[in-house]
Amino acid sequence: MKVGFIGLGRMGSAMADRILAAGHEVAVYNRTVAKCSDVVSRGAKLAGTVAETARFGDVVITMLENDAALSSVAMGDGGLLQSLPRGGIHVAMGTHSVALVGKLTEAHAEAGQIFVSAPVMGRPPVAAAGQLGILTGGPAAAVEKCQPLFAVMGRRTFDCGTAPVGAAAAKIANNAVLACAIEAMAEGFALAGKSGVAGSAFLEILTDGLFAAPAYKIYGKLIAERGYLGDAGFTATTGLKDVNLALAAGETVGVPLPSVNVSRDRLLSAIARGNGERDWSVMADEQARASGMA
Amino acid sequence: MKVGFIGLGRMGSAMADRILAAGHEVAVYNRTVAKCSDVVSRGAKLAGTVAETARFGDVVITMLENDAALSSVAMGDGGLLQSLPRGGIHVAMGTHSVALVGKLTEAHAEAGQIFVSAPVMGRPPVAAAGQLGILTGGPAAAVEKCQPLFAVMGRRTFDCGTAPVGAAAAKIANNAVLACAIEAMAEGFALAGKSGVAGSAFLEILTDGLFAAPAYKIYGKLIAERGYLGDAGFTATTGLKDVNLALAAGETVGVPLPSVNVSRDRLLSAIARGNGERDWSVMADEQARASGMA
Amino acid sequence: MKVGFIGLGRMGSAMADRILAAGHEVAVYNRTVAKCSDVVSRGAKLAGTVAETARFGDVVITMLENDAALSSVAMGDGGLLQSLPRGGIHVAMGTHSVALVGKLTEAHAEAGQIFVSAPVMGRPPVAAAGQLGILTGGPAAAVEKCQPLFAVMGRRTFDCGTAPVGAAAAKIANNAVLACAIEAMAEGFALAGKSGVAGSAFLEILTDGLFAAPAYKIYGKLIAERGYLGDAGFTATTGLKDVNLALAAGETVGVPLPSVNVSRDRLLSAIARGNGERDWSVMADEQARASGMA
Amino acid sequence: MKVGFIGLGRMGSAMADRILAAGHEVAVYNRTVAKCSDVVSRGAKLAGTVAETARFGDVVITMLENDAALSSVAMGDGGLLQSLPRGGIHVAMGTHSVALVGKLTEAHAEAGQIFVSAPVMGRPPVAAAGQLGILTGGPAAAVEKCQPLFAVMGRRTFDCGTAPVGAAAAKIANNAVLACAIEAMAEGFALAGKSGVAGSAFLEILTDGLFAAPAYKIYGKLIAERGYLGDAGFTATTGLKDVNLALAAGETVGVPLPSVNVSRDRLLSAIARGNGERDWSVMADEQARASGMA
Repeated sequence: MKVGFIGLGRMGSAMADRILAAGHEVAVYNRTVAKCSDVVSRGAKLAGTVAETARFGDVVITMLENDAALSSVAMGDGGLLQSLPRGGIHVAMGTHSVALVGKLTEAHAEAGQIFVSAPVMGRPPVAAAGQLGILTGGPAAAVEKCQPLFAVMGRRTFDCGTAPVGAAAAKIANNAVLACAIEAMAEGFALAGKSGVAGSAFLEILTDGLFAAPAYKIYGKLIAERGYLGDAGFTATTGLKDVNLALAAGETVGVPLPSVNVSRDRLLSAIARGNGERDWSVMADEQARASGMA
Repeated sequence: MKVGFIGLGRMGSAMADRILAAGHEVAVYNRTVAKCSDVVSRGAKLAGTVAETARFGDVVITMLENDAALSSVAMGDGGLLQSLPRGGIHVAMGTHSVALVGKLTEAHAEAGQIFVSAPVMGRPPVAAAGQLGILTGGPAAAVEKCQPLFAVMGRRTFDCGTAPVGAAAAKIANNAVLACAIEAMAEGFALAGKSGVAGSAFLEILTDGLFAAPAYKIYGKLIAERGYLGDAGFTATTGLKDVNLALAAGETVGVPLPSVNVSRDRLLSAIARGNGERDWSVMADEQARASGMA
Repeated sequence: MKVGFIGLGRMGSAMADRILAAGHEVAVYNRTVAKCSDVVSRGAKLAGTVAETARFGDVVITMLENDAALSSVAMGDGGLLQSLPRGGIHVAMGTHSVALVGKLTEAHAEAGQIFVSAPVMGRPPVAAAGQLGILTGGPAAAVEKCQPLFAVMGRRTFDCGTAPVGAAAAKIANNAVLACAIEAMAEGFALAGKSGVAGSAFLEILTDGLFAAPAYKIYGKLIAERGYLGDAGFTATTGLKDVNLALAAGETVGVPLPSVNVSRDRLLSAIARGNGERDWSVMADEQARASGMA
Repeated sequence: MKVGFIGLGRMGSAMADRILAAGHEVAVYNRTVAKCSDVVSRGAKLAGTVAETARFGDVVITMLENDAALSSVAMGDGGLLQSLPRGGIHVAMGTHSVALVGKLTEAHAEAGQIFVSAPVMGRPPVAAAGQLGILTGGPAAAVEKCQPLFAVMGRRTFDCGTAPVGAAAAKIANNAVLACAIEAMAEGFALAGKSGVAGSAFLEILTDGLFAAPAYKIYGKLIAERGYLGDAGFTATTGLKDVNLALAAGETVGVPLPSVNVSRDRLLSAIARGNGERDWSVMADEQARASGMA
C-alpha cells in the first residue's frame, strides 16, 4: 500500500517505521522537518506539504499530539479536507476530542472522503514493537482496508463500531477510568497509611488479587513510594488534558462523570501548587494534604 | 494447637475445617448450633458457650458477619473479655469497623488479653482451598504465634503493622478501592456506550491491558452484560455497609474519601429504587439512569 | 400547664425560663444539678430524677445535646419510656438523628405514650427572647396541646407533618443546606480571590442581591475576613456532627446528598489539620489550600 | 458622552435606552438590524458596521450573549481591535469567559486600546429600571470615565480591581454559587420530602431565617411546587453554560470547585433526559430521581 503519514513524534516515528518495514511505501510529513530524517533514512519519501502527503496514496494517517494540531492539518489551508482525493481515507490515530472527531466525520463526508478514528493504547516502545492496541471507529470497508496497516502497528484491534466518535470516546473513557483508579488508590493509601499500614504492604494487598494489573502495579508503586516526586511518565498537566477530554465527551453525549470530577479536582490542586510537570499520580500528594498528612 | 472458633457461617466453616484438617484441636461455637454439625462431624468439639470456646485453647478466632455480632460475642455477658484467659489471644478475622477494632484493642489490653485483627480476602471456595489472603495487625509475637493457623487458612499473610486497626483499615480500604473501580467502570461504560461502542468491546479494551485484573474482568462483565440484574454475588446493601465502613474509618483517622462518596451515592440510589438485593455493580444502572439511558 | 423539662444547657435554660415566665409550672432536671439553680431560683421545681420529671405533668420536654444523651434519658433505666404516664407526651426539642427519632416514635407508641419531635432554629439569645422557629412533627392533637408552650418559646411553628421524623429531617436538612452554602461561598471566594477580586468586594456582590440573607452575610464575612481563625460560633467538629446527621438521614430514607459530601470532606480535612475547634467556615481554609493558596 | 453600543438584545436594548434617556449620544449596531429599530426610533443613530460604532465615540459598549459573538465583534475582520481608536475604551458588559476576557485585555493593550469588563447582575426589567448591579474590572481611570454611563444603567457598581478578568470571575463565581444553592436546596427538599415534610413547609423553614433571600425564595418555590416543569426563566442549557464558565475559570486560575461539579452533573442528567429547555432548577428533578422518587 501507499501511505501518507503526518506527525513524526516519538509515537508516529515508531509507527511509520513499522509500516515501512512491512514493505509499504510511505511518504512522511512533519511541521518540524528534522523529525522526519530517521524514517526517511530508512526509505520513506519526504513530502513537502500536507497536501502532497494526502495525495501520495489512498490512505493518510495522522498521529498528532492534540486537537489544535489535527484541526490545522485537516481543516487548515491546503489541509486534508482540501487535498485528500475523493474516496481517500484519513485515519486519525492520536487521542482527540469527541467534538473534533465528530466534526471531521461530517466534514470529510461532505468532501467525499472517508474518516476513520483509530486511537492507540501503548507508549513508544510498545509502538516500536508493533504491539499497540488499536481502537477502530469508522465505516467497515474503510477499517477493513486499513487492517494490513493496523496489523503491523498493533497487537490487536478493538472494533468500536462504525462511527469514528466511538473509538475516540472509548480511548478517552479508558484513560478516565485510569484517572479514577489513581485517585481511588490515593484515597486507599491515605486511609491505610494514616491507620499505620506501610505503603509497601498496602501495595501488595491491592495488587495481590483483585487489582493484579499494570494500572495498579505501576501507579500503586508510584504512590506508595511517592515516586511522583521523581521523573514523570505522564504529567499532571497532560492528565488534566485527558480528563477534560472525558468530561467534554460526557457533555457531548450526555453522561455525567462524578468520579472523573474528583480526579480533575485533585489534578487542578496539584497544578495550582506548582506540580503540573510531575507525574499525574501526584494527585496522591493532594489527597495526602487533604488528609492533613502534609 | 488448641483453637476456639466462633462463627460458623460459610466462611468460618471452611476456615475451621482447614485448621482441623491440619491436625489442630478445634472447639466450635455458633449462635445457631446447627451450623456447627458438619465441622463437628469431622472431629471438632462442640462448645456450649462463648466462654467455653474462649477457655478451650490459647487462641480464639472469631469470624463474624458484622460489628453487632462481634460486639456481642466479645463484650456481652460471658463474652471474650470476661472469659478469655489472661495472655489469651483473640483473632478477629471478619471485616469490622476501625472504631470497634480500636475499642477491642483497648478493652482486651485492659483485661490482660491480646487482640489481633486478621481480616481476609477471598470468598468461601477460596477459604475452602486454604488460599485466602490474610491481613494481620497486632503485636508481633501474637501474630507469630498464629502463623501456623494462618498458614493452613491462607495463601499468604500481609503484615499491616502492630496495631490491629491497621489490618482492619487496609481491608476496608481495599474494598473501597473496589467500589470506586466499579463506579469508574460504570462511568466509562456509559460514556463509551452512549458514543456507540458495544459493551463487550469496551470490556475488552479495559481488560486487555492496564486493567487486566479480576476486579475489572468480573465487574466489567457484569456491567457490560447488565448481569447485575441476575444473581447477586455481593449485594448493594452489603456494598453500602462496606463503603460506610470506609467512610467511618476515614472520619476516625481524618481522611476524606471523595471517590468513595460517589460510590456511596450510587448505592443509595440503587437501594432507594428497590435494587438493594441486586449485585452492587447495579450502581452502573444508576449511572445509566443519570445519563438518561433508562 | 405542668411541664417537666430535662436538659438545662444554655438553650434549655432559656426555654424553660420562657415557659416559667408565662405562668406554667415547671419541674427541671439536669444531670449536672448545678445548671438548674438559676431556673429554680426563678420558681421552677427541682426534680431529683428523670422519672420524677416525667411524672410531674402531662408533657415532658427534652432539650439535649446529642443522641447519646437523649437515648439515655429516654431509654435508660428509669427513663421516660418507663416513667412517663400512659398518654403522656414527650417533646424532644434537640436536634437528633432520624434513626433515634424513628426508634423513639415506635417505643413511645408501644408504651402507650406520645412522642413529638420539635427541634428549633435559633441560638440562646433568640431562645431567651422567645423568638425561636419551632419545627413540629407528631400527632396533630399532641402538637396542638403543646402550642401554648411553643407560643412562649418561639416566634412561630412550622408544621412538618404527623411523623416526628419529619421535623427531625427538616431541621437536619436546613442545617445541611447551610453547610453547602458555606462550601459554595468558599469556592466562590477562592475563584474571585485568585482572579484578583478583594474578598470584601465579592462579599458585597453576593449579599447585595440574590443572597441578601443572614447565612451569606454572616458566613461570607467570616470567609472574606478569615474570621474563622478567631472565635468559633459553631465549630467544625459540631458542623461535622450535623453533616453526618444529614447523611445518615439520607441513608435512612434513601436520598444521596452529593453536595453535603463535599462539605463533609472539607470539614474532615479541616479537622485532620487540627482546626476542629475553629468555626466551621474554616472549610474555606481547606478550599483555599486545595486551590494552592496556602 | 458619545457612546457606541453593540448588541441590542433584551438586555442591551434596555441598557442603551437608559443611556440615551440620560442625554448621551448613542450609535447602535446589531447583527440583526431589526432589533435596533426601537432604540433608533428613540433617537439613537444606526451604525452600519462594528467599525463605525467603534469610531463613534470614546467608549464602545458590547452586550453580547456569548464568547463566540464577542470574539467575532472584537477580533473579527473590521472588529473592535482593528477599528477602535487608540486610547478608546471597550466595555464588555456581557458574561464572558475568563479566558476570552484575559485574551482581549492583552489584545486591546497591544492595540493601544483600553479594555474594561463590566458584567451585570439583573434581568431585563431591572435593566430597564436602571437598577443593575455592575461589576467593574479595568484600569481605574477608564472605569472612572465610564461611571456616568454605569450610573444610569445601574443601581451601584462593585469594584473588582484593575484587571478585567476580576469582574468576569466575580460574575461567574456569583452565578456558580447560585447553581450550588439550587442543588443544595434540591437535596434538602428531597431529604425533607421523603421524610414526610410538605415542600411548602420546608420552603417556609428555609426562607424564614438563614436563607431569607431571593435565591432561596425564587428557586425554593420552583422546587417545592415543581415549577420547573412550567415556563423557564433560565434554562438548564444556559445554566450549564454558566457552570462551565465557572469550571473553566477555576481551571485558568487553579481553583477546584467540587460543589459546582455536583450542579453540573445534575444539569447534564437533566439535559440528557430531554429537559434542557426547562428552568435550571430542574436539577431538583434529577435529585428526586436519584432518590428513587421518580
